[in-house]
Amino acid sequence: MLNIPPADLISAEAARARLNLLAKPPGSLGRLEDLAVALAASQGRALPTADRPQIIVFAADHGVARAQAVSPYPPEVTALMVQTFASGRAAVSALARVAGAGLEVVELGVVQSLPLTIAPGVRVVRESIAPGTNDLSVQAAMSPGERDAAMGLGREAVLRAVADAVDVLALGEMGIGNTTAAAALAARLLGRRGAELAGPGTGLDAAGVSHKAAVIQRGLDRDGPGDPLGALADLGGLEIAALVGGILEAAARRVPVVLDGFIVSVAALVAVRLNPNVRAHLIPATRSAEPGHGVVLDALNLGPPLLDWGLRLGEGSAAALTLPLCRAACAALRDMATLEEVLGGR
Amino acid sequence: MLNIPPADLISAEAARARLNLLAKPPGSLGRLEDLAVALAASQGRALPTADRPQIIVFAADHGVARAQAVSPYPPEVTALMVQTFASGRAAVSALARVAGAGLEVVELGVVQSLPLTIAPGVRVVRESIAPGTNDLSVQAAMSPGERDAAMGLGREAVLRAVADAVDVLALGEMGIGNTTAAAALAARLLGRRGAELAGPGTGLDAAGVSHKAAVIQRGLDRDGPGDPLGALADLGGLEIAALVGGILEAAARRVPVVLDGFIVSVAALVAVRLNPNVRAHLIPATRSAEPGHGVVLDALNLGPPLLDWGLRLGEGSAAALTLPLCRAACAALRDMATLEEVLGGR
Repeated sequence: MLNIPPADLISAEAARARLNLLAKPPGSLGRLEDLAVALAASQGRALPTADRPQIIVFAADHGVARAQAVSPYPPEVTALMVQTFASGRAAVSALARVAGAGLEVVELGVVQSLPLTIAPGVRVVRESIAPGTNDLSVQAAMSPGERDAAMGLGREAVLRAVADAVDVLALGEMGIGNTTAAAALAARLLGRRGAELAGPGTGLDAAGVSHKAAVIQRGLDRDGPGDPLGALADLGGLEIAALVGGILEAAARRVPVVLDGFIVSVAALVAVRLNPNVRAHLIPATRSAEPGHGVVLDALNLGPPLLDWGLRLGEGSAAALTLPLCRAACAALRDMATLEEVLGGR
Repeated sequence: MLNIPPADLISAEAARARLNLLAKPPGSLGRLEDLAVALAASQGRALPTADRPQIIVFAADHGVARAQAVSPYPPEVTALMVQTFASGRAAVSALARVAGAGLEVVELGVVQSLPLTIAPGVRVVRESIAPGTNDLSVQAAMSPGERDAAMGLGREAVLRAVADAVDVLALGEMGIGNTTAAAALAARLLGRRGAELAGPGTGLDAAGVSHKAAVIQRGLDRDGPGDPLGALADLGGLEIAALVGGILEAAARRVPVVLDGFIVSVAALVAVRLNPNVRAHLIPATRSAEPGHGVVLDALNLGPPLLDWGLRLGEGSAAALTLPLCRAACAALRDMATLEEVLGGR
């Protein structure tokens, strides 16, 4: 297991002390100050940076989507959205450009891989661990080997970002059916029933949510493993396993991770269960409309998300949206004059 | 009076219709979609932009600050902060750079104007209508002529921005004592008592807030004019009048204005009382910790602010922080593929 550092309280305290000396009433930048301190604690630097942000989107398919019709969209949409990320025309593409962030798309296993046109500023990595997972309602979604391969690809993606001197990561996902997998995985880890974590996802009606809850419950009732890695293979997905690996590697390298929505937060929960030090490196971007997200954020206990805007798209879109806020927090901490400098006319 | 256009509902509807065709579940970008629609309604374009943002900070002094000790900081700090804006080392300077926004500082009348070092990307305009206002607790803060001169400077600043093809404005202010003036002005317009709108400002303790409420109430008890322009001269400030003029001119030109904190929101209230069409061009950035801000935002009825982060610095800092969010809203609306394009593989 990776060696993951806890929050650097000395850097956090130094950042807070400097904020209190700056030319402003103490605390008057509100949560922007807390964000600067959180980034300092994660990076282990009194003057953190968020000048080289990177977004990584992991994409994979889910057997439960084809077999149990838990989404209004067919599994083929996963690969179509990979095309759209690559061509620079997805929501996260637009938000990446606004944030000045690089975008990497990692395709881990889709029903049918499609030809790509790759826009400037986008990197695509394609692997095929399997053409999607097994139907989690009847059998384990992944073998331990598939899970480990996916986690490894997640770690490798983060290591590429580290090699590029990336200082803050926004992680996202795409996978038709993955709110079902994420809900099942979170329910197993949190000892909840399927109905407590099932939500409309991309737009199910009440009957659809009820069906989805029953499908999730069948997965839970198989009584698979309850340990984080066991549950991840049993109920998760290839992109969720990649997220877990990526989060662990980022935390090990002191690169703060802005969490996107429900699925990324469930991956974070797995990572935190594996090593509680991971928490120091996580910043929640949003509380999505998906009801399970609130349950998982509460379990992570990371404080309120940066934006409470009802975003529920995934793709890393909410996390991408908050990258300029991270940059602003670091810039205020670093670039502002102290009150003493202002009074001294320096 | 300026001719101010109302919300362009046809552009707003076209923006909403396009959002519903994009490659995402309808509504899944939450309030980012509402922001795009609001910008469309203000600009009168189905595809609004926020690519050329500008921040304008108006600074002036207040007689009530020297005479009645309503702030923990002496009036001289106003001019020192103008120096700091100019030299690029204030909070708003750092946030302007992150937002890719130009920064203009308009000094309208301070106790003592100071020499400046002007950083790249900053424009400073210096006028001196008066060395600050009169003490509003004993007499009218401004003459009608001073008010009109300040409103004119606010309008001119916005016209410079319009000439620079600015497509979204963030307005801010600096003026020791101006939460007292803003609270008095809002109380008069809303029929409230001083104690209902007095708050800690830059950091008064309970006794200080109580003293400030009494000072505000003395101003209210003079029974000055209750019409918006009359109340503005009687209880406002030079920078508040400039904000009113700037907001009116921006609205007339269909340039949306992101409102910063309490003082800017009170100026917006004056502008809206002068012409209700102004509302269509206002976007609240934040709900500050200053208790009067919530009262004024409720009166403006603009919906929830973009960020509820407890910011209370002023300077345009909260508004500056939200400029990348405005840009993101426009970029998502403009740059995303439609679902049909994705399904067609185009």
